[in-house]
Amino acid sequence: MIRKIKKEIRILGFDDAAFELDVKADMRNKKLSRMSMKNRRAKDKPKVPVIGVIYRGGNFLDGALRTDITVDGLDSTEQLIKLINGTRHKRQLRVIMLDGITVGGFNIIDIQKLNEKTGIPVIVYNRKMPDLERVRKALKNFKDYKKRWVLIERAGDLKEFKLKRGKKTYSVYYQSVGLSDKETEEIIKLSSTHGQIPEPLRIAHIIATAVVKGESAGRA
Amino acid sequence: MIRKIKKEIRILGFDDAAFELDVKADMRNKKLSRMSMKNRRAKDKPKVPVIGVIYRGGNFLDGALRTDITVDGLDSTEQLIKLINGTRHKRQLRVIMLDGITVGGFNIIDIQKLNEKTGIPVIVYNRKMPDLERVRKALKNFKDYKKRWVLIERAGDLKEFKLKRGKKTYSVYYQSVGLSDKETEEIIKLSSTHGQIPEPLRIAHIIATAVVKGESAGRA
Repeated sequence: MIRKIKKEIRILGFDDAAFELDVKADMRNKKLSRMSMKNRRAKDKPKVPVIGVIYRGGNFLDGALRTDITVDGLDSTEQLIKLINGTRHKRQLRVIMLDGITVGGFNIIDIQKLNEKTGIPVIVYNRKMPDLERVRKALKNFKDYKKRWVLIERAGDLKEFKLKRGKKTYSVYYQSVGLSDKETEEIIKLSSTHGQIPEPLRIAHIIATAVVKGESAGRA
Repeated sequence: MIRKIKKEIRILGFDDAAFELDVKADMRNKKLSRMSMKNRRAKDKPKVPVIGVIYRGGNFLDGALRTDITVDGLDSTEQLIKLINGTRHKRQLRVIMLDGITVGGFNIIDIQKLNEKTGIPVIVYNRKMPDLERVRKALKNFKDYKKRWVLIERAGDLKEFKLKRGKKTYSVYYQSVGLSDKETEEIIKLSSTHGQIPEPLRIAHIIATAVVKGESAGRA
């Protein structure tokens, strides 16, 4: 599909809090918390907020959304679909943007389904090439390993985009559904107004962190 | 004190969620909820989040903060002081901005004390001239009416500022501590990049509403 990308395109960017990244980085802690969770019922499992921010291009914040998802659960796709289909902003939204395909630890988002059930294209942005071998190893700790791995495969191949900002060039990586590579790259470029991270994702991350920790940790 | 206001001045703007405004508008509901609260202990009183956003001028969001305060309590001043003095952003902060002097219903902020204990100037922005007679009547429902009214008087006189945005001119109202009127007006002007509401306050409001309600309600 070839479309002209408007500068003021409405982008809904989602992210969760920073501590999830620390958790992902520390698989040993992850294992411990998972073990302790075995004795709990599903409804007692910890939840974390996911924040969505609606941007016009990379400059103007139009609105914000919030939902809660289960740490290491598999409810993120369903929760995001419900949130998006329920918002009064929906008619304006042209693209959903995610910072990687996991939130709340290993709660993997089914980006094909997210696109199908909302009718909105999806871009998954990655600041670095994800270490899929490491993710696979971590996922093997889950009983439903296969189900989760399928979601990662369904997200499709990661593509590299050389994002130029002033004198610098950053290699960023993406997947997308419902958009051509050219469209995806244009949207990443026009929304990355302050560095290499698209503004909707940068702000969603700052807010999610403040909501959880009381203060945003930044991301240098 | 005469200072040159930098375009990139770091402003910390605070606001709470939209429903508080509805609550204020409906004094009858307010009385009901207050009566039902009499039977509860102080620690059971409902809390609401207050969100602070740190802006460089009116264009770049640097960070966010969150604290919780008691609905109709008197803990907002103390909670804001603790939050501001504890943040790693403090060194950069040049001004605190508030959207009116109440949060969480009638939790009134002592702006003199906020300035004194943080060492940072305070601007109170009002999009409309507050109806002080109405506020006074509402406050009479509180046992500690006098204590609350003193805080309102301590905030000082409201001054009008004719804010020009494109072809439009808006009358907005402010109080300030630690800044001259000229400085205050310059800061309101440079931070109101998208209309008549300073960007830090507009964003703090959107975020606080999303955190509480799941979706921001906007503010036309």
